[in-house]
Amino acid sequence: MSCNCPNSRWNVCNSNGANGLQVESEHRHQANETRYPDGTVKLRNPNIELMDQDILYHLALGSESHDLVSMFGDVKFVCMGGTPKRMEQFAYYIMEEIGHKLPAGTMLQDISQYSYRYSMYKVGPVLSISHGMGIPSVGILLHEVIKLMYHAKVRDPIFFRIGTCGGIGLEGGTVVITEDAVDGMMQPFLELSVLGKLVKRPAKLDKKLARELRALSEPDDPYETVTGKTMCTYDFYEGQGRLDGAFCDFTESDKMQYLNRIHKAGVVNIEMESLSFAALTHHAGIKSAVICVTLMDRLKGDQVLAPKEVLDEWQQRPCSLVSRYIKRYLSMKGHLSLDGHCGSMCVKSPRRFKLVQQESENYD
Amino acid sequence: MSCNCPNSRWNVCNSNGANGLQVESEHRHQANETRYPDGTVKLRNPNIELMDQDILYHLALGSESHDLVSMFGDVKFVCMGGTPKRMEQFAYYIMEEIGHKLPAGTMLQDISQYSYRYSMYKVGPVLSISHGMGIPSVGILLHEVIKLMYHAKVRDPIFFRIGTCGGIGLEGGTVVITEDAVDGMMQPFLELSVLGKLVKRPAKLDKKLARELRALSEPDDPYETVTGKTMCTYDFYEGQGRLDGAFCDFTESDKMQYLNRIHKAGVVNIEMESLSFAALTHHAGIKSAVICVTLMDRLKGDQVLAPKEVLDEWQQRPCSLVSRYIKRYLSMKGHLSLDGHCGSMCVKSPRRFKLVQQESENYD
Repeated sequence: MSCNCPNSRWNVCNSNGANGLQVESEHRHQANETRYPDGTVKLRNPNIELMDQDILYHLALGSESHDLVSMFGDVKFVCMGGTPKRMEQFAYYIMEEIGHKLPAGTMLQDISQYSYRYSMYKVGPVLSISHGMGIPSVGILLHEVIKLMYHAKVRDPIFFRIGTCGGIGLEGGTVVITEDAVDGMMQPFLELSVLGKLVKRPAKLDKKLARELRALSEPDDPYETVTGKTMCTYDFYEGQGRLDGAFCDFTESDKMQYLNRIHKAGVVNIEMESLSFAALTHHAGIKSAVICVTLMDRLKGDQVLAPKEVLDEWQQRPCSLVSRYIKRYLSMKGHLSLDGHCGSMCVKSPRRFKLVQQESENYD
Repeated sequence: MSCNCPNSRWNVCNSNGANGLQVESEHRHQANETRYPDGTVKLRNPNIELMDQDILYHLALGSESHDLVSMFGDVKFVCMGGTPKRMEQFAYYIMEEIGHKLPAGTMLQDISQYSYRYSMYKVGPVLSISHGMGIPSVGILLHEVIKLMYHAKVRDPIFFRIGTCGGIGLEGGTVVITEDAVDGMMQPFLELSVLGKLVKRPAKLDKKLARELRALSEPDDPYETVTGKTMCTYDFYEGQGRLDGAFCDFTESDKMQYLNRIHKAGVVNIEMESLSFAALTHHAGIKSAVICVTLMDRLKGDQVLAPKEVLDEWQQRPCSLVSRYIKRYLSMKGHLSLDGHCGSMCVKSPRRFKLVQQESENYD
């Protein structure tokens, strides 16, 4: 719905319901909009089916250049995290955990290396992808990975974000499973401008999945695993109340008042991607969860003080929880180690394959 | 100023002036807040001076672990662009252009390699840094690079963003120098929530610098160089009116109406970083410019159709313009080729150096 301000159609009158903003009803979000009868992913965009080819620019993949069904048809879990290095490590970790074997003389390859943006590794039913930093970066990736799920005819995929965060009232090393994501104003939706109109997408995560993950924490775990509200900000410094950015107009006491206020409102951690991750997967009807480890308690300080070895072990904790979930799922399905699909590049058209690599290199 | 809604202090009532929002006056932004008398960069944050050490987590550098004055004291130009690969190429290009020589047996090194996030190369007075995709990613980088300028005692640095974009009414290969950056609602400022209050930072770029750059386009250039308004969005697909994202609720005709409308309002290109780049450099009192090449005319289509060789040549164009500016500056100062400062790692404290590398690896 467009703005009805008398003076200018570009006027600033975004945001509350009374202003007539388009709050997308979650009732509209129905299973038949996001799934075909056989359970494969359907897109809420009628244009894609009609296109000659769909280039996933930021992944260096294309629907007519690559045989996406052969390459990705067996995917069940999509795991995302910040840096290429961390997601390469996760790929090797999950390979070990689920007992996935590579053919002799092969190694994992970064499927999206020619995008020079995201890294993507495939380990049987698991994709491990880096999403960069912030809502726009994870948003571009989600659009393209959701389209990848559609092109590859994947059935009911589950998406995880594995990350680090600042804790609020939780000591360093605590694992947080996000119940709800909110923005820096405590609004539980992703706000984006589409053709000059503000659209709000509820940032909902799958409650059942969060409970199942929570139940996979073990009494012997030498750390706590909690669920709670996650604040997602567009800025790391001022946006998260840090005193050590290039700019700071507030005092230590202002900051503490704010952190205590959001803590009372249920916020247990702060990071920079969950809002988009929750909103876009929810809109696509894809089950998803956000699992982060806290690097410090922001109520006690802003600095990361733990030594390298401790931090490495902390970062393993969300990976371990996701691994338990994946292993349980695979063992219930009776195939903890899969073969069959080709995990490496399956080129359908060498000419188009080259074109997609080239075009992908040139996109910002 | 906080929200005064009767029901909840978290209510959605962001955005217009009448709601009492904090619109930061540009008159407050005074030279003495951002420069010391000798012209070196001063921070608008009193806390940094008081800190024992300042770790630039996302750059893998620290004020007490690295001798930042020796390493970066001679920097004059900071050039940023999307991918690590492109900024490595720019580093080698500018090295050739300004005739900068490396000592025998040395090569450029990615100074921020241990951050696993941004890449940073130094070529004499020029830093070439990748900023990733989107406002939060370039925002984190700017906070830390502005602090780096302060720690290194750099005098009056000039920042450039070199990128690609979609053109509006401009054919592919056109170079656009941004006059003003606006968001997806045509608002000329960066809006960010700080301690639960919305703050607006004017997204201003240096008019004189833009004119100087425009004047460096040459009659022989086989392409146009224009100035105009740049729209900066938080999303690549729906946020830029593309029909080929995972979601699309609008028609081709809605899209065209919108693009024509923003075109009439002066927008000549769309990208994803200029708003933050302009707002944060302006707030820091740093002269800056955004120079992008269009990959297509969005009024004619969304796809990149030019072949690889053509796209490569197009992307060279903003680099070439920035190079002309830098060369002119250096020749006016009488030193087109500089030596003196150590461009490689100058470790001040090996113990702290190791700690900074380790802590940086663990930050999201």
